[in-house]
Amino acid sequence: MITPALGVCYYPEHWPEAWWESDAARMAEVGIKYVRIGEFAWSKLEPTPGDLQFDWIIRSMDVLGRHGLKVVFGTPTATPPRWMIDKHPDMLAVDVNGKRRGFGSRRHYDFSHLGYREECARITQLLADAVGDHPALGGWQTDNEYGCHDTTYSYSPAAQAGFQHWLSEKYGTIDALNHAWGNVFWSMEYNRFDQVELPNLLVTEAAPAQALDFRRYSSDQVAAFNKMQYDILKAKRPDLPVIHNFMGRYTDFDHYDVAETLDVASWDSYPIGFLAISDEPDEVKRQYMRQGEPDLQAFHHDLYRAVGHGRIWIMEQQPGPVNWAQYNPDPLPGMARLWAWEAFAHGAEVVSYFRWRQAPFAQEQMHAGLLRPDSEPAPAYHEAMQVAEELKSTGIAGNASKGRVALVYDYESEWAWQIQPQAKGYTHGAHVRALYAAFRKHGVDIDILPPSAKSFVGYDIVAITSLFTWNDDLRTAITEFDGHVLIGPRSGSKDENFAIPAALAPSLPSNLLDVKVMRVDSSDPNVEVEVRGGGGAVRHWRERIETKAKVIIEDVEGWPVLVSQGKLYYQAASGNKALTQRVADYLIAEVDLPTVNLPAGVRCRTRDGFRIYVNYGAGNATLTPAADEVGYALGGVDMPAAGVTVARLAKGA
Amino acid sequence: MITPALGVCYYPEHWPEAWWESDAARMAEVGIKYVRIGEFAWSKLEPTPGDLQFDWIIRSMDVLGRHGLKVVFGTPTATPPRWMIDKHPDMLAVDVNGKRRGFGSRRHYDFSHLGYREECARITQLLADAVGDHPALGGWQTDNEYGCHDTTYSYSPAAQAGFQHWLSEKYGTIDALNHAWGNVFWSMEYNRFDQVELPNLLVTEAAPAQALDFRRYSSDQVAAFNKMQYDILKAKRPDLPVIHNFMGRYTDFDHYDVAETLDVASWDSYPIGFLAISDEPDEVKRQYMRQGEPDLQAFHHDLYRAVGHGRIWIMEQQPGPVNWAQYNPDPLPGMARLWAWEAFAHGAEVVSYFRWRQAPFAQEQMHAGLLRPDSEPAPAYHEAMQVAEELKSTGIAGNASKGRVALVYDYESEWAWQIQPQAKGYTHGAHVRALYAAFRKHGVDIDILPPSAKSFVGYDIVAITSLFTWNDDLRTAITEFDGHVLIGPRSGSKDENFAIPAALAPSLPSNLLDVKVMRVDSSDPNVEVEVRGGGGAVRHWRERIETKAKVIIEDVEGWPVLVSQGKLYYQAASGNKALTQRVADYLIAEVDLPTVNLPAGVRCRTRDGFRIYVNYGAGNATLTPAADEVGYALGGVDMPAAGVTVARLAKGA
Amino acid sequence: MITPALGVCYYPEHWPEAWWESDAARMAEVGIKYVRIGEFAWSKLEPTPGDLQFDWIIRSMDVLGRHGLKVVFGTPTATPPRWMIDKHPDMLAVDVNGKRRGFGSRRHYDFSHLGYREECARITQLLADAVGDHPALGGWQTDNEYGCHDTTYSYSPAAQAGFQHWLSEKYGTIDALNHAWGNVFWSMEYNRFDQVELPNLLVTEAAPAQALDFRRYSSDQVAAFNKMQYDILKAKRPDLPVIHNFMGRYTDFDHYDVAETLDVASWDSYPIGFLAISDEPDEVKRQYMRQGEPDLQAFHHDLYRAVGHGRIWIMEQQPGPVNWAQYNPDPLPGMARLWAWEAFAHGAEVVSYFRWRQAPFAQEQMHAGLLRPDSEPAPAYHEAMQVAEELKSTGIAGNASKGRVALVYDYESEWAWQIQPQAKGYTHGAHVRALYAAFRKHGVDIDILPPSAKSFVGYDIVAITSLFTWNDDLRTAITEFDGHVLIGPRSGSKDENFAIPAALAPSLPSNLLDVKVMRVDSSDPNVEVEVRGGGGAVRHWRERIETKAKVIIEDVEGWPVLVSQGKLYYQAASGNKALTQRVADYLIAEVDLPTVNLPAGVRCRTRDGFRIYVNYGAGNATLTPAADEVGYALGGVDMPAAGVTVARLAKGA
Ligand SMILES: [Zn+2]
Ligand SMILES: [Zn+2]
Ligand SMILES: [Zn+2]
Repeated sequence: MITPALGVCYYPEHWPEAWWESDAARMAEVGIKYVRIGEFAWSKLEPTPGDLQFDWIIRSMDVLGRHGLKVVFGTPTATPPRWMIDKHPDMLAVDVNGKRRGFGSRRHYDFSHLGYREECARITQLLADAVGDHPALGGWQTDNEYGCHDTTYSYSPAAQAGFQHWLSEKYGTIDALNHAWGNVFWSMEYNRFDQVELPNLLVTEAAPAQALDFRRYSSDQVAAFNKMQYDILKAKRPDLPVIHNFMGRYTDFDHYDVAETLDVASWDSYPIGFLAISDEPDEVKRQYMRQGEPDLQAFHHDLYRAVGHGRIWIMEQQPGPVNWAQYNPDPLPGMARLWAWEAFAHGAEVVSYFRWRQAPFAQEQMHAGLLRPDSEPAPAYHEAMQVAEELKSTGIAGNASKGRVALVYDYESEWAWQIQPQAKGYTHGAHVRALYAAFRKHGVDIDILPPSAKSFVGYDIVAITSLFTWNDDLRTAITEFDGHVLIGPRSGSKDENFAIPAALAPSLPSNLLDVKVMRVDSSDPNVEVEVRGGGGAVRHWRERIETKAKVIIEDVEGWPVLVSQGKLYYQAASGNKALTQRVADYLIAEVDLPTVNLPAGVRCRTRDGFRIYVNYGAGNATLTPAADEVGYALGGVDMPAAGVTVARLAKGA
Repeated sequence: MITPALGVCYYPEHWPEAWWESDAARMAEVGIKYVRIGEFAWSKLEPTPGDLQFDWIIRSMDVLGRHGLKVVFGTPTATPPRWMIDKHPDMLAVDVNGKRRGFGSRRHYDFSHLGYREECARITQLLADAVGDHPALGGWQTDNEYGCHDTTYSYSPAAQAGFQHWLSEKYGTIDALNHAWGNVFWSMEYNRFDQVELPNLLVTEAAPAQALDFRRYSSDQVAAFNKMQYDILKAKRPDLPVIHNFMGRYTDFDHYDVAETLDVASWDSYPIGFLAISDEPDEVKRQYMRQGEPDLQAFHHDLYRAVGHGRIWIMEQQPGPVNWAQYNPDPLPGMARLWAWEAFAHGAEVVSYFRWRQAPFAQEQMHAGLLRPDSEPAPAYHEAMQVAEELKSTGIAGNASKGRVALVYDYESEWAWQIQPQAKGYTHGAHVRALYAAFRKHGVDIDILPPSAKSFVGYDIVAITSLFTWNDDLRTAITEFDGHVLIGPRSGSKDENFAIPAALAPSLPSNLLDVKVMRVDSSDPNVEVEVRGGGGAVRHWRERIETKAKVIIEDVEGWPVLVSQGKLYYQAASGNKALTQRVADYLIAEVDLPTVNLPAGVRCRTRDGFRIYVNYGAGNATLTPAADEVGYALGGVDMPAAGVTVARLAKGA
Repeated sequence: MITPALGVCYYPEHWPEAWWESDAARMAEVGIKYVRIGEFAWSKLEPTPGDLQFDWIIRSMDVLGRHGLKVVFGTPTATPPRWMIDKHPDMLAVDVNGKRRGFGSRRHYDFSHLGYREECARITQLLADAVGDHPALGGWQTDNEYGCHDTTYSYSPAAQAGFQHWLSEKYGTIDALNHAWGNVFWSMEYNRFDQVELPNLLVTEAAPAQALDFRRYSSDQVAAFNKMQYDILKAKRPDLPVIHNFMGRYTDFDHYDVAETLDVASWDSYPIGFLAISDEPDEVKRQYMRQGEPDLQAFHHDLYRAVGHGRIWIMEQQPGPVNWAQYNPDPLPGMARLWAWEAFAHGAEVVSYFRWRQAPFAQEQMHAGLLRPDSEPAPAYHEAMQVAEELKSTGIAGNASKGRVALVYDYESEWAWQIQPQAKGYTHGAHVRALYAAFRKHGVDIDILPPSAKSFVGYDIVAITSLFTWNDDLRTAITEFDGHVLIGPRSGSKDENFAIPAALAPSLPSNLLDVKVMRVDSSDPNVEVEVRGGGGAVRHWRERIETKAKVIIEDVEGWPVLVSQGKLYYQAASGNKALTQRVADYLIAEVDLPTVNLPAGVRCRTRDGFRIYVNYGAGNATLTPAADEVGYALGGVDMPAAGVTVARLAKGA
């Protein structure tokens, strides 16, 4: 862990060299420590094949270094120059409709194309050699936003060949594949691996096991692509962190897997754009149009802290209006500060604003920066400066405190229910985030766990919902855990080959959980069925279960909704917000978890002796100090809109 | 006609051979008589080209036969194995966007591909020879759900060549085609038949006559495909029925034409899924989400009884939640029984549940069966058993009674108004079904007639609405009929070449009907114009007519809506539900038709001495016994939700 | 200018030659003077390559001429015959998805295909030679509705090659192009012009400068295509007008540029269809479903009068229900008269109804004509006759009076904000039309100006809104103008390379307008922020400006909305209808502009001594005579629905 610091994304190639010096000086003045450069500069670094032009970027590092700034150097592999397409015409990906995705924007490459992968190894090695020993170098970024713009999946000949090879390694024999996929079903049996095509443009849906294997294969290619770069960069500088900037809300590949070859996980946080493109109801979109959804950023911070083995950066932080949503509102004054503080609360080491100066040209010209296109400060310039000062004055350090509640988040489960929603709009993530919001409403610190978690020791409550399939580690963790476990609907409803398990969902040993899902009743989420005792309703997904467990909540039609067997709880239906809250409240009461009394719109998290409050509301809010607080390092009980309050915690709290 | 019986769809290839015996025993225990097998088993019957593996399926027939079960053997041509694509790479259809539709699901073939048609003749002949004399054999099914997943139309080179040939046979000279299609209009004249391309991917819409001819051609290919199989199967066993299982709500080819080479028409009935994908308003979708739309199944039964020359089966009956709609609700308890009873009321010989055991793997793993995946009974298991017992106890037999009202339903009219709606959403079927529901509300038995009907003798009322074009038989039937005929809007508005007839719509001799449609006023269906005297409104489609006929109903703007000339009635506008009811009520009163007083949600039909009532409502209903009833064979006046009551009719009633 | 007259579109090739004589006689009887023929007749004029069959069309001109009718001869290049595709298979355009757009409808050609352009020159020359000296000839039409059915843009190899060449001529060096497009941004730099591909099917959006250049290139091809025909036709008959019939609501190419080689601009006016496919709210669509939007036709008349250098025809006027909208209502009785009168009020020389007789066959069979398919008069027949008589009786002549208010309309600005809306649905045209409606509400005559206007002399108010970029002429016109100028939001926000100008928007000299747009706040148009003083709200697009100008209107959050600096006004936000009206009212009051008191639904314009009122309302309206009126040439103060009143103006008014 490094001391919390600010960063910024900078493109020296966009500006006259004469400007670099004053840009660097002003960055230092703001209090910025890290500057990301390089990730889109390939055509300037190698304008024609083999013509390496690294001097200018080294000069820019010299300038930055002179002002005490550390450089995060991005490999430029997300934007191969146009001549690369001449060399490898088939390196362009093919979309789900069978169309080659042309040159002229970014991410125009196919993860399955091994020729391009070699070119990336080449340029990465050359750059590592050229700048790896530069004194200003502080870290590496691999590529940029893997998968953004739907680029994880390609339906190209390269992808088909790669998939066939991957399948042959996974299954060994074509009979094993036929069996695993259930190909007997519609005479879909193959005679040879080279007959397998990709699951697009079929007459009707593909076998779900085929669709899932294609996603696993594609995810593996992203991980292999990253490992290729990681190995080169670590070999050069074992001491420097290798980071990738994941895109928020993006789940098409397994981020845990990719992070096996990363030192730090970072993500790109655009709260207002993310809310705009979300499925939130219109009233939420309007209420928070200038702030972003209050739990979304926090969830990602906690998720990427898990992805990053405890280390997280925000590599790109929205500073003002962006350009890519349907509507792009101006943030409330103070939000650029709030978002940074919230990230630090959840353990961020660095929050790096995107970008230094708004570019007046090309695709992102309407995306704000810390500077306006005319080099005058934009609002975020001053807010960043304030954050830098406050970081110093509060002395925040350490890492995010370990949570009392843990939620399992699983990329494969996202894919599974996209492949087979059974109820339109059913997703793993929405179920996890609903629980996240319900626990967080009480100011409880939450950790996210990967499905590979081997133990739940140290948590009071662990919740697993909508999980595609169990693995041995997770079963063991549940079995050995002496805390409370909530298992949500649809969990364990499939085996790893996307088949219904012989014991039926949720498929846990009956001594652990005596529940069998006989069938599923899915419906329009507007159709709600109240639960007895009030406080919510089931909707969207309802399981008809057989159980000998104790019924805690049932719906007005008499179907069990929440049952318990010892400390294991099973929720047999999706619920509306009130029901999810009722379940979370029930568990919090059962384990007697300490809570924080939060006004509407306010959220908090603790980090190493501090509790940071942020006010996402558009009006003032008044805090009720929690029992473990001993005063304020920043702000106080009265929080304005977009306000931040940092409370000090009693030692040992 | 055979005695009403139950059936089930079974896939011995999906289960260990060791399970077959107990499966068969339990089927017999339920009271099942017919078991459909084989229709998706090609890759097991011929794993590689020419390697015929028929033993296992014969052994399965042995087992089923030992338990008194009769086998309906399905030809496996809807799912050619993967090696077939190696042999005939161009047998895959091409979608309307020009994309080849790949292997990996089902129905991956092009009706125009003659090489594949030969392969189908080969396997059909081989199977006919192998199992044709098996003592358990009770009938054949050809292919499976022709056209499902938009597979009637292919835009492939094979289809183009076939279409050009078909056109040259139809028109003889290219001049005749140019004239028929009106190609002078935009210089669309062809010099040779080989210049004609398919009507997809044009700059703007194709000439409607071209679009219609392409649909006629495509429909003819389905009929030819079926005839090829029929001829082989009948040659082997002239005594056994050849059946096809049509898909409900599917109209892309002419089912009457295909049924020219069928002995029985069957259809696949999924009431809840059909309602979910229908255009019904949201409140109807919610009201009947666990039952299905109350008139849709009945309409299909009556339609397929006409298609099947009086003989109808339900080859696939929904038993519980399905997997293919956006939401897939659990049926109300009792619906699997109700749907079967309703089918029998409308003349079904066999109602066959789909499927025996829920398959835990592949595309339909969330589709319920009579058994759960763990082989425990699902609710429909018990409901089917109850039906089997009730069939016996009531002694129902014979066929559906001849209707008093007949409605003409015409596939070509469906195509015509899809090609040229003129008012978005205007369809032939919706107009026919609206009248169907209006007459059925009074408990009147209805028959569906094909447009090839030569006589209306025996009916009190015949209604023809939204008919594309007259043919000579239909004109004769009208002229010679002494009952009441209602002709609905848009009828006869085109000649067979999709041109406005010289006499203008409805184009009947003026001594028969002196009406001329001067022009059409189409509008958003939400814009309603009340009719004088109340009781409804015109909407969507309004004709400005000149007429000397007597005006019975006019709208508040003074335009005639219903006129009569003797017993011939013309309705010059589409109406809302109330107006359609008013028109039906008027005709029922005119001919003094006996009616049944039905509570909301309850429907009925008579079959050979019985009147069967079914309650689609979610609550109780109380019947008022009709004058011709002499008691109850099943149930009584008090009907629970999903209830069935069978009344006995007085002899001669 | 010619004396106002009626015309009609006629297709002699659609009817037996025996009918021509009586058709012509009846046209004359109606009072028609101009008959357009020929524009879709290529396959009859040249049935096979080189087989010229011009006799029949010359005979049809003979017949028309005998009845005193003048022929507008349309070149048939919008519908090349099928054999042309055999000769030039690559002449078919390619859609944005990469699909060749097939033969079988119309406009199936690629503007970039030079081989087809030569064929068009050939047939144009042959026809000019054959009919150019015919005594009945009164003018020419080039092609038909350039761009209709999305045919301006093609993504074909021909278009790519043409684009590359156009770019090389525009930029000279690839470095200049890279710089202009900002290609450094994502390593999008090209090494050679032949690497540039078209901006479709990319991974994400193209650089906006690339997208705009492609639109400029494509627009230039339309202009070059028209010039080719114009040069031939003018060389043959310098005395006759060459006209093109532009399609209403269509903006994909620059109509001003195309009209550089036209003598008259005409447009095709389908008021009801245009409203149906517009973005107007549902209540407006219902209120005017039988009339069309009351300001849309007028706006187009004024626009095309500008496009046509003062000369405008309506080449196709809707006569009754059409066939191409989702719903196609019958117009109110009288609308075919009203639309013609409104066109004459705005300066039309000829209003030509489309079409003479409704065609019973092919794509437009549901499109009304002056005659029904059975040759009986349709309602518009009588309405046209009435108009012809009224033109005579009123003696209307001259041209539309010069407006007091002028609005700049710019095609490039339409493209720019389609390429980069930043707020979904933001368009140049909607902003211009909102101001148009606000000024017109007061009966003020309005002119439209092209962005190439060099002077505003003679106007009281000039409004420029949402203008992409300034040019030198426009800057000069503003600087030298002593009237009032309103500059709307987003104006001048880009330079010609689609980059934010160094001075930031609106980028006028600060002595003229001291305003700087710091950033943009865009939002869902349903989110409104009231302005102080009431009377409207800002929405959709709000600029955060720095200014030293005088604030006239500000919003309740304190942001300036309307500021002034001398007679220059800047509006810094989009407004709702009320705000736009408040701004227009403010300016009208400032310059003390005479207004007309108009009832709801009524609109007016003056033409050479007359003020023509039209009532788009569905009920009666009563006029308040204006001070400059001295009596009525037609109608009076009481106007029925669809009524027309023509007031005489005092001399010199
Ligand atoms: Zn990004
Ligand atoms: Zn099916
Ligand atoms: Zn047109």
